[in-house]
Amino acid sequence: MKKIGIIAKSGKSQAIEIIKDLLPWLRKKGAEAMVDSETADTLNIKGYPKSKIPSMVDLIIVLGGDGTLLSVVRRVGDKEVPIIGINLGGLGFITEIIKDEIYENIDKVFSNKCYSEDRIMLQANVYRQGEGIAEYSVLNDVVINKSALARMIECDTYINQQYVTTFKADGLIVSTPTGSTAYSLSAGGPILYPTLESFVMTPICPHTLTNRPIVLPDKFVVEVAIKSGEDISLTLDGQVGFPLKVKDTIKIKKADFKTKLLITCDRNYFQILRTKLKWGER
Amino acid sequence: MKKIGIIAKSGKSQAIEIIKDLLPWLRKKGAEAMVDSETADTLNIKGYPKSKIPSMVDLIIVLGGDGTLLSVVRRVGDKEVPIIGINLGGLGFITEIIKDEIYENIDKVFSNKCYSEDRIMLQANVYRQGEGIAEYSVLNDVVINKSALARMIECDTYINQQYVTTFKADGLIVSTPTGSTAYSLSAGGPILYPTLESFVMTPICPHTLTNRPIVLPDKFVVEVAIKSGEDISLTLDGQVGFPLKVKDTIKIKKADFKTKLLITCDRNYFQILRTKLKWGER
Amino acid sequence: MKKIGIIAKSGKSQAIEIIKDLLPWLRKKGAEAMVDSETADTLNIKGYPKSKIPSMVDLIIVLGGDGTLLSVVRRVGDKEVPIIGINLGGLGFITEIIKDEIYENIDKVFSNKCYSEDRIMLQANVYRQGEGIAEYSVLNDVVINKSALARMIECDTYINQQYVTTFKADGLIVSTPTGSTAYSLSAGGPILYPTLESFVMTPICPHTLTNRPIVLPDKFVVEVAIKSGEDISLTLDGQVGFPLKVKDTIKIKKADFKTKLLITCDRNYFQILRTKLKWGER
Amino acid sequence: MKKIGIIAKSGKSQAIEIIKDLLPWLRKKGAEAMVDSETADTLNIKGYPKSKIPSMVDLIIVLGGDGTLLSVVRRVGDKEVPIIGINLGGLGFITEIIKDEIYENIDKVFSNKCYSEDRIMLQANVYRQGEGIAEYSVLNDVVINKSALARMIECDTYINQQYVTTFKADGLIVSTPTGSTAYSLSAGGPILYPTLESFVMTPICPHTLTNRPIVLPDKFVVEVAIKSGEDISLTLDGQVGFPLKVKDTIKIKKADFKTKLLITCDRNYFQILRTKLKWGER
Repeated sequence: MKKIGIIAKSGKSQAIEIIKDLLPWLRKKGAEAMVDSETADTLNIKGYPKSKIPSMVDLIIVLGGDGTLLSVVRRVGDKEVPIIGINLGGLGFITEIIKDEIYENIDKVFSNKCYSEDRIMLQANVYRQGEGIAEYSVLNDVVINKSALARMIECDTYINQQYVTTFKADGLIVSTPTGSTAYSLSAGGPILYPTLESFVMTPICPHTLTNRPIVLPDKFVVEVAIKSGEDISLTLDGQVGFPLKVKDTIKIKKADFKTKLLITCDRNYFQILRTKLKWGER
Repeated sequence: MKKIGIIAKSGKSQAIEIIKDLLPWLRKKGAEAMVDSETADTLNIKGYPKSKIPSMVDLIIVLGGDGTLLSVVRRVGDKEVPIIGINLGGLGFITEIIKDEIYENIDKVFSNKCYSEDRIMLQANVYRQGEGIAEYSVLNDVVINKSALARMIECDTYINQQYVTTFKADGLIVSTPTGSTAYSLSAGGPILYPTLESFVMTPICPHTLTNRPIVLPDKFVVEVAIKSGEDISLTLDGQVGFPLKVKDTIKIKKADFKTKLLITCDRNYFQILRTKLKWGER
Repeated sequence: MKKIGIIAKSGKSQAIEIIKDLLPWLRKKGAEAMVDSETADTLNIKGYPKSKIPSMVDLIIVLGGDGTLLSVVRRVGDKEVPIIGINLGGLGFITEIIKDEIYENIDKVFSNKCYSEDRIMLQANVYRQGEGIAEYSVLNDVVINKSALARMIECDTYINQQYVTTFKADGLIVSTPTGSTAYSLSAGGPILYPTLESFVMTPICPHTLTNRPIVLPDKFVVEVAIKSGEDISLTLDGQVGFPLKVKDTIKIKKADFKTKLLITCDRNYFQILRTKLKWGER
Repeated sequence: MKKIGIIAKSGKSQAIEIIKDLLPWLRKKGAEAMVDSETADTLNIKGYPKSKIPSMVDLIIVLGGDGTLLSVVRRVGDKEVPIIGINLGGLGFITEIIKDEIYENIDKVFSNKCYSEDRIMLQANVYRQGEGIAEYSVLNDVVINKSALARMIECDTYINQQYVTTFKADGLIVSTPTGSTAYSLSAGGPILYPTLESFVMTPICPHTLTNRPIVLPDKFVVEVAIKSGEDISLTLDGQVGFPLKVKDTIKIKKADFKTKLLITCDRNYFQILRTKLKWGER
C-alpha cells in the first residue's frame, strides 16, 4: 500500500483540517498521498485530477458523505481500487467511518486488519431505435422516473427476455444491495444485506397496488421499455441524469466489475442500520 | 332543470356518437342542451365555450374520464352547478356512470331520483416573499414534488400555525376524500369515504420512514414552506402545474365552495372500490 | 372541582411517591381525593373500589401509561367524568402529561386553563344466531383476529348494510382517531387527528394486497360476519378478549358517550407525534 | 423413473377422478404407481402410508393445493425426491400445474423435458435453557407470533451472533424465496425470485415503524430470543405449531437439503405472479 489517493467533498473545510494532519501521518507510514486538485489548491500543495487518481493509486480515501463516495466510485469504474469512506456529516450507509476513527481505521488497512468487501454494481444501457446511446455503471441505483408535472409512466418490463408486467407508476428503481437503504427504502423496498448477490426492482407509487418490490438473482437481466409518459429521465445514483423518450429500452444487469469497500474486521452492519434507521424504543 | 351543458373529452369519437342520440332525447324531455364548441364543431351544431357553459346551465353532463371531469370542475369553480359524469373508458372513481346507464341515470335526475353529493374541494395559495402569487382550487389533490433529476425536497410543515415536521421526501400530497383513491393511494395513503369532512396529507417516498399519512379535519389549515430542493412544482389535480422556489409557502385549506356530483340513489361506493381496486380472490 | 379520583397502575412505586406529595397539595387546594383501594392500602389510607370512583368524583387523575388510562375509561363508561393522564413511563399518546408537569397541569385544571377534549368511542355488539351476547365500548380499537396457529380468517364486511368486501387476513382493526396511533398504525393504518369525527378500518396482513385502510364517517355502522377461521377472538382496547365463532356478527358503531380528556391549552399534538414516532433526521 | 408416488389432498373427489385415469396411463408408460392409503381406500386399491412413500419412489405427484404440497415436502425431508404439484383449486404458487396440463407435463417429465428446480428450505431449532427441544424443516416459512389476545412480543434478534435489533411486534416471519409470496407478502415483505440463495426476515405489525423487511444471504444464521410476551407460538409452513416460552431461543438457518420441484421448461414464474397477484389494469 504505497500510493494513496485522497478525494474530498468540494468546499468542505472540515476535510481540509483532517487532510492537514493526515498527510504527515501518511508520510511517516511510508505512503505517498495524491490529493485531488481542488482540495490541493486550498492546501497549497500539488494536486491531481480526480479522474486520474484512480489509475495512479493503490487505495483511495474519500472524505465527505455517501454522495461523494458514489461520485468517486463512478471515476474508479472497472479499476477496482479499494476505497475507504470517511463520513464528515455523521454516519453514512456506505461511508461508515466517522471522523474520530480515521487513524485507527487507516492503520488497520496498513496492517491488513481491514478486508475489502466486494459490492456488486449495476450497468445500465440505453437503446434508442435499436442503437446503444448511453452506458452507465452505478453502485446504488438506476432510476427511471417522470418529472413533477407529468402523469404516470408506463413501462413494459422483461426479465431474461420474459415479459413480467407493465408498471404504471411514477417510476421504477433497480437497486443494488448497497443502494437498498437509499431511494428504494423510501419507496417501500426491503433492506438487502450488502454482500447479497441480487438486486431489487422497486416501483415508485405504483397505480397497481399489487406491484410489490421483487428481489432477483444478480445474474438476471432486466429490460424496461418505455411505453408511454412525458419528461422521463434515467437517473444514476441520484447524481447523473439522462433524458429518455417513449420507445427507449433500458437494459440493466450486473456490471463486470465491483466496488471494493474497505471494511474493518469489527464493523457491524446492523449497528449502522440501527443508528441510521432509528431502530429502538418507539 | 331546463338548460343542460354537455362537455366531452376532446377528440373522443365515442362521445360524439352518444351526443348525437342524447340531443333529441333531451329536447323531447323539454331540456335545452348547450354543447362545448369543440364537440359542437364536429357535430355541425352551435357550440359554447367551455369556460362559459357553467354560468349558463342548470346541470353539466361530462363525457370522458375522471380527468375530463376534474377539468370541468375547475371551470365550474364557485358556481356549484351539479355535474353528472359519464365514463367512456370503463369505470371511473368520480365518473361513476357507464355508457349503458346514461339514459336511465339522466332520467333519474329529471325525476329527482338522484341526489347531489357535495364533495369538499381544497384551495391552495402560493406566497412568495409574503405576497400571494397564485391561487387554485382542486377536487382531488394538491401535490408539491420534485423533478425526476432533483434530489429530495425539504418542507417545513405547519398545521393551524403549529409546527408539525420537516418532510424530506420526493414530495407531499394533500388530498380530499375524492382524491384519496387517486395519487395518494399510490403513495400509500388510506381511502377516505367521499363525504368525509377531512383531508389527508401523504408524503411521497419519505426519507424518514415513520412519516405516515395523517388525516385532518377539513377545518384545519396546512402551510408548507419549501426549505430546500430544486425544480420543485405545485401540481393541481395532476393537470395544472406551477413552478415553486425555495422559501415559497403554500397554504392549503378547504375551499369555500363544493363540487356537486349527481349520484343515483342506488349508487354503491364500495362496489366501485371493489371493481377498481380488484378486491376479491387473490 | 371538589372531588378528585386517583387511580394508579398497580404495583407502580413511582406512583405511590407522587401521590404522597399530591394528597396534601390537593387538600390545600380545597379538593377531596379518593384513591383506589389497592394504592390506598400501600399508603395506609382509606381507599375506594376502582369501579365506584367514576360515579363519586368530578375528575379522575390516572397515573400509569396508556394502558392504565384505557382501563379507567372502560370503568367510566357513559359517566363522562373528565380524565387527566400522567404518564410514568415517558410520553404516552393518550397520557400526555409527564411527571414533572403534574402540578402545573392540575393547577391549570383548577383555574380552568385546561379544556376537555371529547374523544369518540366505539361500541361493539356481538350477535350469535341473531341474539346479542356481548357489548363493549372502547376508546382505542375493536380488533377481530386469529390465534397464532390458525390460518387466516374470512370476514364478510358490511357498511350501513351495504356489502363492502370479504377480508381474508390475520384480522381486522376498527380504530377511533385516538387508537389510530396504536395497533392500527403498526398494521399500516394512517394517523387520524384525535378530534376527527371518523374511524378507520385497517386489515391485518391482508391476503388481497389491495385491501387498504378505509376512513369512514363516525355515523357509519360496520358489521363484520365471521365467514371462516378458527380460534378467532374479539379484542377490546388490547385488554379484554371475547372468543368468537364462525357465523358470529360483530356490529361496530360510535358509542353514545365520549371520553373527556383534559388537555392543557398549550398542548401540541404534533409535538407528541414527533417525539413518539421519532420524526426527524434519518 | 420407474416408481411414482401419488399423494392427494384428503377428501378431494376431483383428485379421485384424476387418479382413476392416471393409473392406467402410468402403467402404459411402464411406471408403477404407489397411491397414499387414504386415497387408495376410496379407489379400492392397495395403498401405502404417506410417511413411507418418499423412501419408496423416484417421483411424487401431489394433487391438491400449496398446503398439500407443503405437507408432502415435510414427509420427504432429506430424501430429495422430485415432486410435481397439480393444483386442483386454480393456480398455486408452488403447485403450478393446472388440471388440464397434467398429462402433457408428466409426459415431459418422462421425456426429460422437465428440470428440477432446487428450492432452499429452512431449518428451525428451538432451545430451552440451552437444550435443543424441537427441530423442524420448512419450504415456506418459520413464524414466531403471539395469540389473538396477547399483546406484542419482544424478540432479541441476532444474525451470525451479532445483535441486530429487538423486534416489538405481533411476530416475526423468516421466509424462503418460495414462501415470500405467502405470509411474508401479506405482512409487507418483498417477492424473492424462487431460486435466490437468500431468505427474508419480515416483522408482523412492528411497533417500531422503521423495522423493515431484511433480505439475508442463505449462509447466515438467525437467532431469535423471546424476551417477553405471552401465548407465543412457533408456526412451521402455517401448518405445524409449537408453543414457545419466554427465554426460548429459535435458531433458523438453511436446511442441509433442498426441495426438488419439477418444472417444465416453458414455465414462466412471472406469469404466475401476474395471475395470482392480479397485476394488470387497475
